[in-house]
Order: sequence, then structure tokens, then C-alpha cells
Amino acid sequence: MLSRLSLLSNSRAFQQARWRIYRLKVSPTVHASQYHILSGRKLAQSIREKANDEIQAIKLKHPNFKPTLKIIQVGARPDSSTYVRMKLKASKDSNVDCIIEKLPAEITEVELLKKISDINDDDSIHGLLIQLPLPRHLDETTITNAVDFKKDVDGFHRYNAGELAKKGGKPYFIPCTPYGCMKLLEEAHVKLDGKNAVVLGRSSIVGNPIASLLKNANATVTVCHSHTRNIAEVVSQADIVIAACGIPQYVKSDWIKEGAVVIDVGINYVPDISKKSGQKLVGDVDFDSVKEKTSYITPVPGGVGPMTVAMLVSNVLLAAKRQFVESEKLPVIKPLPLHLESPVPSDIDISRAQSPKHIKQVAEELGIHSHELELYGHYKAKISPNIFKRLESRENGKYVLVAGITPTPLGEGKSTTTMGLVQALSAHLGKPSIANVRQPSLGPTLGVKGGAAGGGYAQVIPMDEFNLHLTGDIHAISAANNLLAAAIDTRMFHEATQKNDSTFYKRLVPRKKGIRKFTPSMQRRLKRLDIEKEDPDALTPEEVKRFARLNINPDTITIRRVVDINDRMLRQITIGEAATEKGFTRTTGFDITVASELMAILALSKSLHEMKERIGRMVIGADYDNKPVTVEDIGCTGALTALLRDAIKPNLMQTLEGTPVMVHAGPFANISIGASSVIADLMALKLVGSEKNPLNDKNIHEPGYVVTEAGFDFAMGGERFFDIKCRSSGLVPDAVVLVATVRALKSHGGAPNVKPGQSLPKEYTEENIDFVAKGVSNLVKQIENIKTFGIPVVVAINRFETDSQAEIEVIKKAALNAGASHAVTSNHWMEGGKGAVELAHAVVDATKEPKNFNFLYDVNSSIEDKLTSIVQKMYGGAKIEVSPEAQKKIDTYKKQGFGNLPICIAKTQYSLSHDPSLKGVPRGFTFPIRDVRASIGAGYLYALAAEIQTIPGLSTYAGYMAVEVDDDGEIEGLF
Amino acid sequence: MLSRLSLLSNSRAFQQARWRIYRLKVSPTVHASQYHILSGRKLAQSIREKANDEIQAIKLKHPNFKPTLKIIQVGARPDSSTYVRMKLKASKDSNVDCIIEKLPAEITEVELLKKISDINDDDSIHGLLIQLPLPRHLDETTITNAVDFKKDVDGFHRYNAGELAKKGGKPYFIPCTPYGCMKLLEEAHVKLDGKNAVVLGRSSIVGNPIASLLKNANATVTVCHSHTRNIAEVVSQADIVIAACGIPQYVKSDWIKEGAVVIDVGINYVPDISKKSGQKLVGDVDFDSVKEKTSYITPVPGGVGPMTVAMLVSNVLLAAKRQFVESEKLPVIKPLPLHLESPVPSDIDISRAQSPKHIKQVAEELGIHSHELELYGHYKAKISPNIFKRLESRENGKYVLVAGITPTPLGEGKSTTTMGLVQALSAHLGKPSIANVRQPSLGPTLGVKGGAAGGGYAQVIPMDEFNLHLTGDIHAISAANNLLAAAIDTRMFHEATQKNDSTFYKRLVPRKKGIRKFTPSMQRRLKRLDIEKEDPDALTPEEVKRFARLNINPDTITIRRVVDINDRMLRQITIGEAATEKGFTRTTGFDITVASELMAILALSKSLHEMKERIGRMVIGADYDNKPVTVEDIGCTGALTALLRDAIKPNLMQTLEGTPVMVHAGPFANISIGASSVIADLMALKLVGSEKNPLNDKNIHEPGYVVTEAGFDFAMGGERFFDIKCRSSGLVPDAVVLVATVRALKSHGGAPNVKPGQSLPKEYTEENIDFVAKGVSNLVKQIENIKTFGIPVVVAINRFETDSQAEIEVIKKAALNAGASHAVTSNHWMEGGKGAVELAHAVVDATKEPKNFNFLYDVNSSIEDKLTSIVQKMYGGAKIEVSPEAQKKIDTYKKQGFGNLPICIAKTQYSLSHDPSLKGVPRGFTFPIRDVRASIGAGYLYALAAEIQTIPGLSTYAGYMAVEVDDDGEIEGLF
Repeated sequence: MLSRLSLLSNSRAFQQARWRIYRLKVSPTVHASQYHILSGRKLAQSIREKANDEIQAIKLKHPNFKPTLKIIQVGARPDSSTYVRMKLKASKDSNVDCIIEKLPAEITEVELLKKISDINDDDSIHGLLIQLPLPRHLDETTITNAVDFKKDVDGFHRYNAGELAKKGGKPYFIPCTPYGCMKLLEEAHVKLDGKNAVVLGRSSIVGNPIASLLKNANATVTVCHSHTRNIAEVVSQADIVIAACGIPQYVKSDWIKEGAVVIDVGINYVPDISKKSGQKLVGDVDFDSVKEKTSYITPVPGGVGPMTVAMLVSNVLLAAKRQFVESEKLPVIKPLPLHLESPVPSDIDISRAQSPKHIKQVAEELGIHSHELELYGHYKAKISPNIFKRLESRENGKYVLVAGITPTPLGEGKSTTTMGLVQALSAHLGKPSIANVRQPSLGPTLGVKGGAAGGGYAQVIPMDEFNLHLTGDIHAISAANNLLAAAIDTRMFHEATQKNDSTFYKRLVPRKKGIRKFTPSMQRRLKRLDIEKEDPDALTPEEVKRFARLNINPDTITIRRVVDINDRMLRQITIGEAATEKGFTRTTGFDITVASELMAILALSKSLHEMKERIGRMVIGADYDNKPVTVEDIGCTGALTALLRDAIKPNLMQTLEGTPVMVHAGPFANISIGASSVIADLMALKLVGSEKNPLNDKNIHEPGYVVTEAGFDFAMGGERFFDIKCRSSGLVPDAVVLVATVRALKSHGGAPNVKPGQSLPKEYTEENIDFVAKGVSNLVKQIENIKTFGIPVVVAINRFETDSQAEIEVIKKAALNAGASHAVTSNHWMEGGKGAVELAHAVVDATKEPKNFNFLYDVNSSIEDKLTSIVQKMYGGAKIEVSPEAQKKIDTYKKQGFGNLPICIAKTQYSLSHDPSLKGVPRGFTFPIRDVRASIGAGYLYALAAEIQTIPGLSTYAGYMAVEVDDDGEIEGLF
Repeated sequence: MLSRLSLLSNSRAFQQARWRIYRLKVSPTVHASQYHILSGRKLAQSIREKANDEIQAIKLKHPNFKPTLKIIQVGARPDSSTYVRMKLKASKDSNVDCIIEKLPAEITEVELLKKISDINDDDSIHGLLIQLPLPRHLDETTITNAVDFKKDVDGFHRYNAGELAKKGGKPYFIPCTPYGCMKLLEEAHVKLDGKNAVVLGRSSIVGNPIASLLKNANATVTVCHSHTRNIAEVVSQADIVIAACGIPQYVKSDWIKEGAVVIDVGINYVPDISKKSGQKLVGDVDFDSVKEKTSYITPVPGGVGPMTVAMLVSNVLLAAKRQFVESEKLPVIKPLPLHLESPVPSDIDISRAQSPKHIKQVAEELGIHSHELELYGHYKAKISPNIFKRLESRENGKYVLVAGITPTPLGEGKSTTTMGLVQALSAHLGKPSIANVRQPSLGPTLGVKGGAAGGGYAQVIPMDEFNLHLTGDIHAISAANNLLAAAIDTRMFHEATQKNDSTFYKRLVPRKKGIRKFTPSMQRRLKRLDIEKEDPDALTPEEVKRFARLNINPDTITIRRVVDINDRMLRQITIGEAATEKGFTRTTGFDITVASELMAILALSKSLHEMKERIGRMVIGADYDNKPVTVEDIGCTGALTALLRDAIKPNLMQTLEGTPVMVHAGPFANISIGASSVIADLMALKLVGSEKNPLNDKNIHEPGYVVTEAGFDFAMGGERFFDIKCRSSGLVPDAVVLVATVRALKSHGGAPNVKPGQSLPKEYTEENIDFVAKGVSNLVKQIENIKTFGIPVVVAINRFETDSQAEIEVIKKAALNAGASHAVTSNHWMEGGKGAVELAHAVVDATKEPKNFNFLYDVNSSIEDKLTSIVQKMYGGAKIEVSPEAQKKIDTYKKQGFGNLPICIAKTQYSLSHDPSLKGVPRGFTFPIRDVRASIGAGYLYALAAEIQTIPGLSTYAGYMAVEVDDDGEIEGLF
């Protein structure tokens, strides 16, 4: 209050408007002798002590709980410094952290606003107070309203002032001085209901808010001010008088009704020669004469003054507790309603008919703070990994993997099931859930396969933004990969064309502005080479040679260039044919970007730091001594990491029902893990996770769900998910949803082959129990495979209209017999989340079951043993047969120290075996290992059982041909 | 008011709290017989008429002025429907457009909020009113606060309520009923200052806001409510009584002070058997008995009721005028202060030391609405071209081109000057200015040249985000270009491997889900071929052949693949060498992405629509009959446009001083226009433009400035800017800033050659008047070149510390002699905008001079004549010499109908001639034309005078090697 009131009486407005002095023309009554002094000092102390006790109590359970106030003081007014010191002291007394930031008086508004905005974003600061008055060039209204109203412990923000003024309003904070007055009235047990209260003064800091508080406490309130004509008369009818007019000893004894309660907010210095300072402090009330008529009166000093500071501390504690409780709340997802149509329209028509939420809203519902979010247009955003720090005390949510049985070429609807399941969990069961999916490549989107956003009433929207560019992560990978490729080839070219070591070295470590020095990556290379020199000119010729010459053997280079387009002509090319390259040609080729090792690294990294390390470790080939050459040796680690700095941040989108989806990374399923990113899973699990040790244990703290997918069938995608992705992330799913269709099981049971683009044979559209009963063996084998890892299984039968109930029953029975916890049908494609409610319940149940997780193999066993384990335990084969070429590679990798990595096997997705024609559950086959390659940065070897195309082609008719854009940018024909 | 009050008396809160009835125990005085009825009907009518008159008056000048109110009614309550009808009627009476949107009662909150948000974003709606009450499942507080407070004509938003409650607050709107009461008091000439006013009722809709209004009008205000004990006594002291308690005829005659003013806000229906409806309408005041004691009293009905609706209309008009005035305001840019250091730190250190504004703020300052902005993180955003419609009535701002003299290989600081100039204009002269610059390519950024964000204290920030990825536009171009390249090669492959027309045609137009149809692009091709058939099965074999076979001659293909990396090994390559391509190899190569025709198209398109047309027109090569084959023929127009849909939206960033920068497109200066985009220039000129016909002509309407650059020297870059870019945009600069350095002029005057990476010879660091005096001829020639186009010239001498005053004077004198309007030095690199203030003043002056623009040549003259014009008039050559190869191409282009396009000449940038060693102003040379190529989509031919590399290489030491990223993602070593 001190600062406020003195501010008030100093203000120009006040100086101009002198209050009229009135005398009441009624004769004074004899006054009672009993009055009470309402001590603010005592009450303030007890409030501070109570705050301290509460903080100590919370700290016992939550050592991190640290209510913190930040005070910004602009300039160095001595009075402001005094008030700031008092606030600091009161905070200390209560164990509230108080940080004072003094800024120069000449700071510009734009700089101060930026400072405030940074503090608003700082979760460690709970209350922010801008010490007033500000220098003239700064607009107080703008500045005070820039403070986050949830940190506005002064209660000056428009939000809080507005809510306080409203009947039934909900301010986050009550301004400290009025709040202190109310506490004093409460302390005196003054009943306010129906009483006449008179407030002298109408300032925004005291008069107006106290009038609102009294009014809301059901007093009849009159506000007097400098224009009031009959002030004495008005005051004489008051049961309660609040004097906040800033005029020394203005309120006289003869105005006061006998027994009235008087709260004196005034702080005025008047001359007093008896004091050393020459002045003394008095209130707005003529205390000595008035006190006798009152029942309660506050003294000055020692009345309202100390209360202001105490209420500030109390507000900071409130802010800290509120933020704590807020931070432990589970997300509340407000679903977008679906207006289902039948027959189900096309995917793009369904997507267009829905009006998505702004992605800011999706993020807010997830509890992501605005500064943790980077918007990319209106419907996509990146989430900053900084969020991990804020959420570190949370326990993870439940982790659910969606996998499939061996599919037909039509696909059995894993992505659609993933979307349906989260839509059901979030929008229909009220359980906050996030779907984590891969970013689609432009190649298939514009080629044959189309996008990958789910389908029907279970999809990611807007589907065009999902399928094209997204936030540019894949493009960033292309750029990084191609920089690396260019750097490798150019290095070989320069080494080859500059035969003289010294000249070459001079160019490699040039003098710049007279100074010659090593880059940090060169310094690291020197360290690896045990050359401990900092001066480039100090290297011996031998050291120069060792340092400068990478001697890369072109035949060993494993890095190919990439493009995110289906460009078959680039599968094998000869480069370097221009005259400028002086005959240094080389045969190489392009892969599709998602098949690059950098994409696998993006998917498997837990953090920017780890990604950088993995990038540096990438082996790009070997030198002529067959020693691995890494990205670090090329000097590219930093540049590649810089290009991927934003790509590591997971992307947020939404389902058709407005529930959150994270889209991040999309490594090629054929030769990599075919799963979305580790970092997105870690983040999503925290976002729906629950506080271990909640402050407010009345909240429901059952955590939410993260549902993610593994490419292809469980034997391939699921195995890699567990043995490679889970090894990287340290996570273990709580349940696996195994997606099956009647269609695929019939195909395993002997029904004719299914071909894309052709009508289904009638065996698939008519009931055929036999085929289902035979084919169900594939489902059973996949269930057994999952149980090998010790995780509960839910079978989801993705329902088609032509499926008969009897067929479904056969599947359910077999699934339960094989050990599935549940086997249910799901109709999300036609009904969205509503159609997947039974599945969602089954998943919720299954995640409560105990699990007994173990990896399939020990990474430290031999490469051959690991391969054998996968083939025997997952695929049902008898043994492996390793080609001589593959064996040579295996031996090399062992020698190079890469033998103890997990292994990814690339094979057909249409059979459990290596032979796509073998349906059902083939047994006893010998599994060929034609080749073995290494992704050292990504951290796995991969074995090829077949010729795998790493860049698809465009067919005669391809998807891009149908795409049109209207003048408003609406895209048609993409799907 | 009607809706509000009846709502109030219906509310549950009210039913619970019955007011006590008191009688005043003093004897009634005899009352005066003179009282006045305060008719709301009459006043309301006059307010509506006044509104109408005002609207008509504005419409005379601004036919588009159309104040519009939107009312959302959720559900179909009959009382709500009545009130909505009344509002509609009152709006009509005033010529205010009123749109009623009825939504189903069961609408979800999320849908309603989305609806409100869309209306908030709709500039054609000025006022938005949510008819209350809402169905129970919708939260009124949330919904009313979702309305943009600038459209909240009801005054219910927290912002407006909060500001109203504050002393000196600035609400955008006053709630209609309280506002109507105040208008009635005003009409009766009631003086409020110092009067006692008593308000009965404390609702947020009437009681509280009217109390605030009266208090702010200096009345002494008492608020009574259901808990007030001595209401009669309180009222008896009132000079003004506002009855808003919702109790029929509650206020009695004996409470009223003689001569009081009584405003009756009540609307109550009481039984009345004399009425057909069985009820009659009464107020909160016992009118018949009270009226005699008053000086003024409002009747019910016909008092406050009509006023509420009239004030609503008045608020809508206010909102519309305000928006109009707002929209014609020039941007106000709040500069970020610079804290200059000496010596000048590195660019990255300067960039890091500055804390940029959030890009939202930069956009707000420019007057861009939030829905017109797509954020990309915190410091970059795209601006929607939708903004053109809103700004169409503006006149363009001033358009300034920054060009250069013939440079040294070190560059003479054009970008830096551009930044310095806009920093000076915006931050120091208070003239809103936008710099429009190119997006840098990753190639040079990670290669040798480094980024392109200006330098020193005149740069774009954050420079890492500027130089890496930006918003992905270049990546989108890479993807689009490479899709096209893949489509061309694959088409040739499929045509070659499928010899049978019928089979090939079946694959090209496949049956899908039983249906066979042409894509829209195929339909357009059929039309071009005059085949008017819709059924694919109806084509004759001859038609099939003509339609399906493009017969592309591989030797004619001009589309190369692209990558945004300096990858020299890709300059010439052989593709198609994998076995799957069956021997269909072809020699081709990669360009750097910015050298692609698509980049030039992006730079030259005025809209998405025009970009699509240009893409479709692109000639990719010719068939065996030498007829051009276009992107449309390949069927790629839609897909390419879809990939570039977001790229066409200009990007917004900021300078070091927080002033706006648009970064958009970056065509290669060597073979293309080397200038930023047309659409960004058009947009920026509107953003700083002024309203032709302002509503508020007290505002200053002098427009702001758009400063953009042309690559290389004026003779090359400037000429292309005028003859190609200006032809596309229709714009003409108001002045050209010609950047010169003492250094470059010395080099033209005969000083030794300057080489990058080497120290400057001493001739450059010591005063040498001779060299300057000789070399200044180059400057003079460039000034003459500019004056050929009829545009005023300002010479900016980009100052270096070693420049002597005498050297500077030589330049100034020569410049002014040659016809420059001004010749000034500029020191922005060391001082930011402050250092370019003199330049800024000169530019402001120059743009006021008359101009007399003409193109250099008539596009319809022959290709040879156009080439000759450029060589003679710009370069100072004698004649051209066309190689046979070039002549053949020229003849082909003429035959193909491309003879009347403007021409871009690719030559060295280091001389006015084709020979880089010829400094100064060479004369009489014969200029060789080695080759001529065509960018038909971009709309120009380009002639090559030299071997131009379209993809650079990496040198032995390259920029990427120094780049490092720390764990927080901070990038180091990029520059």
C-alpha cells in the first residue's frame, strides 16, 4: 500500500482536484469510550507466518516448491527502492523467493515489454510485480497489462481488475491494499452484509477495488471523491469508513457515526519539528479525535501498511500453489463433434467438412505453454524439447503399440485403428490420449500409395498439410544428407587433385583475416589422432598428412544422395561427368529421403544432444586401410545438426475429432524401424502422464494414453519396435493392439490373391468360415510373437461391412485361446471414435495387466545368433543361410567394433517368411541373408533377405496427375 | 435492454435474493406539480436517425462503408427471437446491416467458439452480439469473452467491463442499457458532478456499469441491492435514482426526494385482466405515484427500452468507423534500440546480442491482422495474399530500388545499405518502411560466401533462421522441380517400354473402383488437342495415340534436377543406370535450386493463380516434331502448384532495429532476375500505402517506403529489374539508390586487383585521389544508365573507416554532375539506422521528384534488337556477335512464338562488358552471345555471354566445417 498511496497523493490528477472540506451540521453525540485498535502489524506477521508454515509443509512433500516473486524496478527512485526493500524483506520472512531486477530508467518500452514477456514465460517465476511509478516515457497501462494475469500478484491487470469489478467475477488476484483492508475487517469480525460502507477515493489501486470487494460482500457502498458535495453527511451514515483519499487527517471526528469501523489507508508526511526527520507520518483520518467514536480503527503507521506487503506475499504463495496444481492436472481434450454420413464420403471430403481447432488450442488443452510451442501456420506446430524439464517429475502415461498381422497388399488399417483408438479414448472415454505417427513421404503421397493420415472418420487433419511438407522436417533431412554427400565427394575430389600435402593442408586450414585456426571439428579430429596442437602451423609433415588426408576408398561409401520424390531414374547414376570434375566420376545413386540414415537417427534420438552424437558417429565409408570414416572426420557434424535443429522438435496436429496427434520422423519401413520418433513418444508420455506426488490429491491422477504404430506386421515391425526403438528410448509398451481383418485372414487361409486396383474376389465379400478358420493361424502366431516380449495383447478386428458375425466369432475365439486379453471389433472407419469405444475399453483394461518384458535377444550375442533368434522366434524359420558377401560384411563389422548392435531384417512384408507367396504360418524354411549393412549412427545393422528398392518409381498413372489447386489454395484430387 | 433485464429477473441468483421492502419513516413533503417525462422512444429515434445520416454521409465518400452487426442466436427461445427481431429492425432503420445467424441449441462449445473466432476474423463484420441467455451446456463467460473486444458492441467482454470499471479506463464499448441511461440523463441536461446518485441493483449488465459511468461523471454513487437494509433512506438522499432491480413498482413515492431524476430500467410483466394478453408491462418504479415528485422520469414502456437498441446501433456504427479509421492508419514501427559497440563485433555476435520482437508484434505494427498471418516459430511468419483484398483501396507506398556500381569480388554492401536505409527510415525518421530481400540459398550459406542478411549493425535477424530453411520455400521448390523432372523421365521411360498404344493408354487412364475417367489436366490436354470427349473409352486409336504419346525428344529437355547444396559432382551425370531402368540412360545434371525456372516463377508471380498459369506454361523440352512440351502436357501443373501453395506467401522477418523485412524468393542472379518477389513488393507497398480517401483526414497520410534490391550492378541487375520484374509487377520505382564504395571505384581507376580472403593492397587503405577520380567513371555510367529509365538517383557511398574526406568529395561531385539528385555517405554498418539518416533523408527527397519512366526496349522488337539495345545502352558495347548455336535457338524460339519476351543476359558481374578484366567503363567491345535459352513460364529468354555455372562447388575449406550447435540449439560458426 505504501507505494500506492503515496503515489496517489503525488499524482498530478490529485493535485488538481482538491477535496472540499465539509463540516457536518449536526451536533456531536457523546461517544463511547471503548474502541479497538486494529493492528495491521500483528495480523501481517501472522499472515506471513502462516504462509511460511504452508510453504514448509508443501516443501516436505515437494522439495522443488519454491514460490518466487520477481520485482522489476525501472530507474532508481529512492521511494521505490524503499518499497522494494520492504517487499523483499516480507518475502524473506515468509520464505518466498524474491528477485529484484533493476532496469535503467531509460529502457525503452519495447525492451521492457520483451523483458516482461520473458518472465511471463519463465515457469520458475510465480508472481511478477512492476514497481510503480514508471518513468514518464513508459505507459503504465500498457506495461501493467503486459504482465501475465496469472502472475499479476498486484492485481492491476485488466483481467483481474475487470473480474473483481464483476458480481461473481473470478479475479486471479485481489490487489494487495484492498485485500489487506478486507483481511483487517475480517480480523475484527466486522459483519459487512447490509452495512453501509463509505469509501473515500476512487483510485484504481484502492478506492475502486475496495468498493467492489465491499459490494460483493453485500455491503451498501457509497464512493465519495473530490467532487462529492456532502461528504461529512455521507460519512456520518457509514458503518464502515475506508479512507483512501490521500489528504492528511481529512476525516474528522464529527463525521463519524458512533461505533463505526474506520480503516485508514492514507500515508501522508506532515511537518513535525519534534521529529529528527522534521516530519511525521499520518493517515487520512484525524486519528486522535476520531478513534474515540469508533469501534475499530486502524492506526497509521502500523495499520493497512504492513498488510499490503503481507498480502503480496500471500498472493505469490497463491500463484505458486495454483501453478503447481495447474501443472499436475491431466489434459482435458474438448472433442470436435463428428457429423457422420453414410455411405462414408471420400477421405478428403471428410477432412474438408471438419473445421479443425487452431493448433494453439490443441496445445493448450495438452497443457503446453505458449512459449513451448512454435506455430507453423494455424494447424501445425512444433513442441520445444525444453518442455521435458518442466514435466520431469511426471510419471509416464500408458504406452500402447498398434501392430498388425501379416497384411494383404491393401493394408489392414493400422493407422486408421490408431486414430480411431485415440479418438475413442480422448473424445468418448474422456481419457487424454495422443496418437504418435510417422510423417509421410512426398514420394508415395504423389505416387501410388497416397497419404498416410488414416481414413474415413479416423484421420489426421488437415490432410493436405499433413501429407505435403508438414513443417519441413523431411526437407531438412534431404538438405543435411545431401550436404554430407557433397562434402564427401568434394573432399575426395580435392584430395585427389591436390597431391601436395602442404598445399592441400593450407587450403583446408586457411588463413582468415590474417589468422589461421582449426575449427572445433578439426580440433576434435586432432584429438582422435592424438595430435595435441592448437597452432595449425605447428604440425609436422607427418601430422599434416594424417590430419588432412582422409583417403576415403570410394568403393566403400555408403552414403547416397536423397530426394523425397519417387524418381526411379536416380537409382543408379554416374556423377562427376562435367569437365570441371576432371574425370573424377563415380557410380552412386539416390535413395528416397525417408530411407536415409539421418531419418533413422531423427527417429531414434532422445534429444538434440544425442542426435548430434549419433550424426557424428555415422560411418560414411572406409579409408584404404578399411578403417571407418565418420561424419566427424568429414567435419560435418555441426552443420548437419544445425540443419536438423528444428527437425528434432516433434510436430503437433489433430485427429478429425480434435484430439492431439504427434507427427514426427518417418523412417522407411523396408530397411529401417518404420516407427515414429522416440522423442515424440517420450514427450507425449509426459504430456499425458501424472504427477507422482500431487499437491492437490483430490484431482484424478490416472494417466492418459500414447498410441503409436509399428510398420508392417508384428513379426517385422513389432520386433524392430521392441528390439531397436525400445532399446533406444528405454520405454516398454503397456499393451499391444494387434490389428486383424477378416480379409487378410482369409488370404492366409487360402483365398485367392488380393491385388491393389482390382475388385476383391467374391471369397472376400461372402461369408467363408473355412478360410477364416485356416488363416487365423497367422493371427495366433503374431499373438505368440507379442507374448514372447511379455506384453498384454488386444486383438482389434478392423470391421468391414461384408464381415459376418460367424467369421468374427472364429477370430475372437482363436485370439482369446492364443492368450489375447481381449478380442473386439472396431468400426472407427465408419463411425470415428464412437466405433472404437469397445476397443478403447479393452485397451484400458489390458494396460492394467501385469507385463513381463524382455528383449528377443542379447545384443552382445553374435550377429549370426541375433539373426537366428529373429528368424526362429519371430518368423518361424528353421535357420539362416548367410551369403559370402554378407559374411564378409559381418566379419568387417565385428572387426570394426560394430558387432554388438541390434539388427533390423529387411524382407517381404507379405509373409512371415522371406517368400511373399507363403501365406499363413510357414515353418521350417531356411532364411537367406544376402547382405548386411550398417547404420552406425542410427545404431543398428540391417540384413537384407531380398532386393529392397530404396527409392520407388512413378507408375504410368500416378497420384500427382490428379492434383489441382484452386485460386484460394484449396487442394483437390490429392487422395 | 429488454433482453438483459428480463434475463436478470429470470436469473436464479435473483430469485434467491429477494429485496427487503422498506418504508421511509419521514413525512412526505408536498410535491411540485412540474415533472417531465423523459421519452426514450423519441431520443432513440433521433439517435437512429443521426446514425443513418452519418452513414449516408460517409457512404458518399466511401461507398464501401457498411456498418454490419452479426447476431448469433443459439437455440430458438421465443423471447430471444423477439429481441433479435427488435435489434434487426432498429439496425434497418439506421441503415446498419444486421445478419442473424441461428445456430442449433445443441451446438457444442468448441463449435460455437470456432464460429465466433471466424467472425472475429471477418473484416466485413464490425459488431458481434451473442444473444443471451445461452443453453445451459454453454458457458456464458467463456462465450462472451471469446468475442473480439473490438467487436463487442454489447460491452460484455472482460476487457470492456474492466476498462469501464477503471477510473480513466478506455472501454471500446459501453454496454447498451447503461449507455442509454446516460444518454437520457444527458438529454435532460442533468448535471451529474457532485450529485448523489443511487443505483438499485448490482448486475454486471446494468447496475455495476451504470454505477461506474456515474462515478466517472463525478457523481457520488451508492449502489443498493437485495442486502441493503435502509434502502428507502438511501434513495431519499438521491438526486438521481437508477432503478434496475427487476421488482415491479418497487420504488415508492415516499422514498423520492423532491425534484429527483428517476431512470427506470425495469421491465416486468404483471397480471392485468383489462389487457387482452392478461398482463401489462411495468417498471421497477411505482410510476404513477413517483412521477409527481420528480423533475424527470422515464416511462415503462418507452423509456430505457428503446434506448438499449438504439445504443446497440450506435455502437455498431462506432465500431465500423473505428475499424475504418484504424485501417487507414499508417503503420507505427516501434524500434528496438541498438547498443552500438566499437570495434563492430561479428555479425553473429551482433545478431545474438539483440533480442528480436516476436514476429506477431512486427506484423501487428504493420497493421496485419492475426488471421492474415501464419507463424513459423517465433520470428518468422507468412502473410496471406488474402490481405490484398482488404487493402485494395490503398495507394502504394514509395518504391525504392537499391542497385550498385560494378563491384569488386568483395561486394560493395547493397544488402547492408538496404537494411541500413529501412532502419533509418523506420526507426529514426518515423517513416514506416519495409526492406524486401531475397531468401538466401543453403549452397553459399554453407559454402564460401556465407549468408546474406546484411552485416554489422544493419542486418536481418535472427540470422540463423534467415539463412537456414526460413519457412521452407526453397525446399518446396526443390520438391516441385524434382517431381517434374521425375515425371518427365518416367513418362519417357513408360512411353518407351510400352510400345502398344492401347495398353499404355489403359495404364495412363486406369479404371479405379470400376470407373475410368480423365483427370482435369488430361481434360485440358484433350481440349488443346481438340478432342472433345469425356469418356476415356470413346477415343479413337488415332486420338489415343495423339493424347497419350508425348514423344519427348530427350535431347531437348531443359529441366534439370535441383538441390540447394553446392554439389559440383552433380553438374553433369548419367541417370537410369540401374537394371530396373532397362538401359534407358540419359545425360543430365543438377542445378542449385535457386537457379530453377520455378524459383523465377515464384519471384515473378503476382498471385497463386498467376503462378499456376506460369507453371503450366513452362516448356520442358520439345517433341520429335520440335513442338514445345509443357508442364501441362506432363499433367504436373496442379501437383507443382500444390507443393508451392504456401511458398507463394511472402515471409516476414525483422531488421536488427525491429523494423519489418519481407524475405521472399531468391532467383539466381547469374541467369535470372536476382531480385526478390513481385508479390512481396506489391504487398509491402500496400502495407505502407495510404488510403486514397481517408475518413479521418486529420491523420498523416504520407505513405511509407519499400526498399528492395537488384543483384550485381545496375547495368545487369537494375536493367533486369526494370525490364523484366517491373514488366511483371506493373510497378515503377520512385527512386534508385546507387551504392558505391571508394574501394570499388579505386579498383575501376586502376588500383591492383582485390581478391577475397587476401588482405587489401595498400592503395585501398591509404588515400588515393587519382584512382578514385579515374574510377568514378563507372559510377557516372551507372547513373546515366539509371537515368535512361527516367528515375531519380541517390548515390550512397557505403563508408569505410579508411575512406578519406577528399576521396568522398570527388565521388559526390562526380555523382551530382552526372545528374544524381543526392550523393551522401552512409555509415550503417557501424551505426545501424542512425548511420543512414542522411541517406534516408536524401531518399525521401528523391522520391518526391518527378519521374519519366520508360523501358529500355520494346518487347515486340526482334530478339537480336533487344540484345543490342541492352549491350549498347547499358554495357556501352558496340554490337553483339551471335554464335551459330545461339542463332539456331533464337530462330526456334521465334518459330515457337516466344520471340516477344524480355531478355536476361548472363555475363560476368565484374565488368560492364563480358570481360571481367575490363574495369571502369569499357567501350566499343563486341559482345558475344554464346547461347540463348528460354524460361517460358517465368516469361523471359536468357542469353549467355559466358560459361555460367548453375551449381557452385564446395572449396577445400568450406563454411559448413565451422558450424557447431550447442545443446540448446544455439548455432555457432555459421558466419
